[in-house]
Amino acid sequence: MRSSFILSAFLLGCFLSGQPADESRPATSSVLNAQYPRVYPDGRVMFRLVAPNASKVQLNGGTGLGAIPFDMTKGADGAWTVTIPPAVPGFHYYWFVVDGLQVNDPSSDAFFGYGRPTSGVEIPTADEDFYLPKDVPHGQVRMQWYLSKTTGEWRRAIVYTPPDYDANTGTRYSVLYLQHGAGEDETGWIKQGHANFILDNLIAQKKAKPMMLVMDHGYATRSGEGTAGPQAGRGAAPAAGRGRGGMGTGGVLSPSAFESVIVDDLIPMIDRTFRTLSDRNHRAMAGLSMGSMQAMQITLRNLDKFSWIGFFSGATVSGDLDTAYNGVFKDSADFNKRVHLLWMGAGTAETQLIQSLDASDQLLTKRGVKHAIFKSEGTAHEWHTWRRDLNDFAPRLFQ
Amino acid sequence: MRSSFILSAFLLGCFLSGQPADESRPATSSVLNAQYPRVYPDGRVMFRLVAPNASKVQLNGGTGLGAIPFDMTKGADGAWTVTIPPAVPGFHYYWFVVDGLQVNDPSSDAFFGYGRPTSGVEIPTADEDFYLPKDVPHGQVRMQWYLSKTTGEWRRAIVYTPPDYDANTGTRYSVLYLQHGAGEDETGWIKQGHANFILDNLIAQKKAKPMMLVMDHGYATRSGEGTAGPQAGRGAAPAAGRGRGGMGTGGVLSPSAFESVIVDDLIPMIDRTFRTLSDRNHRAMAGLSMGSMQAMQITLRNLDKFSWIGFFSGATVSGDLDTAYNGVFKDSADFNKRVHLLWMGAGTAETQLIQSLDASDQLLTKRGVKHAIFKSEGTAHEWHTWRRDLNDFAPRLFQ
Repeated sequence: MRSSFILSAFLLGCFLSGQPADESRPATSSVLNAQYPRVYPDGRVMFRLVAPNASKVQLNGGTGLGAIPFDMTKGADGAWTVTIPPAVPGFHYYWFVVDGLQVNDPSSDAFFGYGRPTSGVEIPTADEDFYLPKDVPHGQVRMQWYLSKTTGEWRRAIVYTPPDYDANTGTRYSVLYLQHGAGEDETGWIKQGHANFILDNLIAQKKAKPMMLVMDHGYATRSGEGTAGPQAGRGAAPAAGRGRGGMGTGGVLSPSAFESVIVDDLIPMIDRTFRTLSDRNHRAMAGLSMGSMQAMQITLRNLDKFSWIGFFSGATVSGDLDTAYNGVFKDSADFNKRVHLLWMGAGTAETQLIQSLDASDQLLTKRGVKHAIFKSEGTAHEWHTWRRDLNDFAPRLFQ
Repeated sequence: MRSSFILSAFLLGCFLSGQPADESRPATSSVLNAQYPRVYPDGRVMFRLVAPNASKVQLNGGTGLGAIPFDMTKGADGAWTVTIPPAVPGFHYYWFVVDGLQVNDPSSDAFFGYGRPTSGVEIPTADEDFYLPKDVPHGQVRMQWYLSKTTGEWRRAIVYTPPDYDANTGTRYSVLYLQHGAGEDETGWIKQGHANFILDNLIAQKKAKPMMLVMDHGYATRSGEGTAGPQAGRGAAPAAGRGRGGMGTGGVLSPSAFESVIVDDLIPMIDRTFRTLSDRNHRAMAGLSMGSMQAMQITLRNLDKFSWIGFFSGATVSGDLDTAYNGVFKDSADFNKRVHLLWMGAGTAETQLIQSLDASDQLLTKRGVKHAIFKSEGTAHEWHTWRRDLNDFAPRLFQ
């Protein structure tokens, strides 16, 4: 269904725009009817911006795109173009730099990253469609507003309820709390991550139990304590925010305003508003990049509330496990009894992180702490890695 | 709560940015921590863009901003600024034109308009907060995916369920179908319009009955019939799309693919998925601008399905009522019996539309067709007009 639609759109696009009928297709991440960026089957991407008066235009963005920045070339029609070598598969943020001014691509939909709406391009992976909408029952994605006592502000949680949640009024569900990375917001796991479609597909195949997902905004400041949000401002890369509400020196897990939002405000609201199973055996938390540091800090400090834990491309384990992480790993038998799953993943194109992951693996194995390691083949610090993470992590939950 | 937060954010903003402690505040439509645009109590707005290498920068956008485009002036710091005279209150799309290149403001959140993500600025109206979140029970806003037989594609409806929908499992609800304008999408009524907060507040005050809102994407093409979306491309103004699925020549209401999506796909899906009251007495439809033409076409062609009708800043009534609109007004007594509400509104700054509205009023009065006319004082063809429309329209429904 979808592929035939894409093909039709592609052929029509060629007809409308006078494009050569090559193998490229408009990116699925673009707005309706936009013809650029065009993605080739081998992962090359052609970007285009009409800026006849510009002197210099470059393409910049996530490292998954390749050797950023790329210089663009001006054509006789005033359009600047570049076709980049095959990029890492997945979803990559990007922008143009026009005579020094950073601008979004008018062809792209807007994805919240880097502290603001940002362009993105989806580079499909051959034979991999677990994150695409299929003709299976679909859950709902709900925006739920709530007043946070911690911050004194209205906040918005995004909640995925599985298919038939409304019909099965006698059923209660487990909950996975799922956090975005630095500079992103609570919309990321749905819009960039397609978390709802991943769960729909897993549930339809009976690979995962029907469960709820809850996503919140990973920034919080206690009422009266000043500004929330990325301290480094909008230039901060999603990967750069480690340590916010994460660990202090010496591997000490410190409290944070965000922990208070999750534990004191969000979880009680969710358990009050939805038909959840509200004990620790039915509550999980995971996050990506900065969100994984938050998941580490919040779950390990609140093992009375969480028993399933996932770190996606960020938090790893190191140091003296007798004392680090507030000593939770000291008694590994006790940890193994209390924590049903400790899961860590990264993309193989995240080379430094893979090294830390391997070291964590060895350290935890030596300590006798049960854990799972996942490596996403060929992907970088970007959303396709995290989609695959969720696709591996969710089926292991609540079993 | 909110105002004290805004004030704190304002004072903190001055401290952080070295701004003069004047009366301006960062627009609530901007991203977290952004200091521009700054809105003054009298409606003046200061816009700013850092573009040291640019030769000419202008501010452009919706007509509610005033005498667009505005030239901006470059400061010694490389930032271009302009403070515009008091703008019409409400929400206005805008963008910068940098040496001929149209770009969004990196300070602004993205709002879908003009066929793509677009910057927007909120200019508050003194003593008017019916559209802001308050400490009252909040409904949910749900994204519901469904496969359209008409288009052969997956579509996404946005559904507001009133507070306690999930708790009142024995209760069924009336539904208002609510459409956006040209170049916008199904997100507009929530993000720009704050329709959920308007309903939350009306319901809390018992001014409106608890009801559902359903918002869909106003573009559709039958499977195999080519491209959907704004024909005029992304340059099209939201107001420009009249006639799409509206009236043919001679006031004939013609069928459209979008009507088929609403009547054959969306309504059955909604009635199957939610606890609706599914008869015509409990179903309304309204829309703004292009959406009002669609509401006219769809409701008047399907009076077996709708009995409450609203036209916001768009459709009006003219011509020979014996024959126009497929003759629905010919027998006014019959029309009055079948249609519980025919409601038309416009902002008084929409001067031409106000003339058409007055003419419609006279024509319908002369014909003996019961109807309601609403004029939003001082507002233009923009979302604040439509918020006020909804705030007047919704309390009249399903009574």
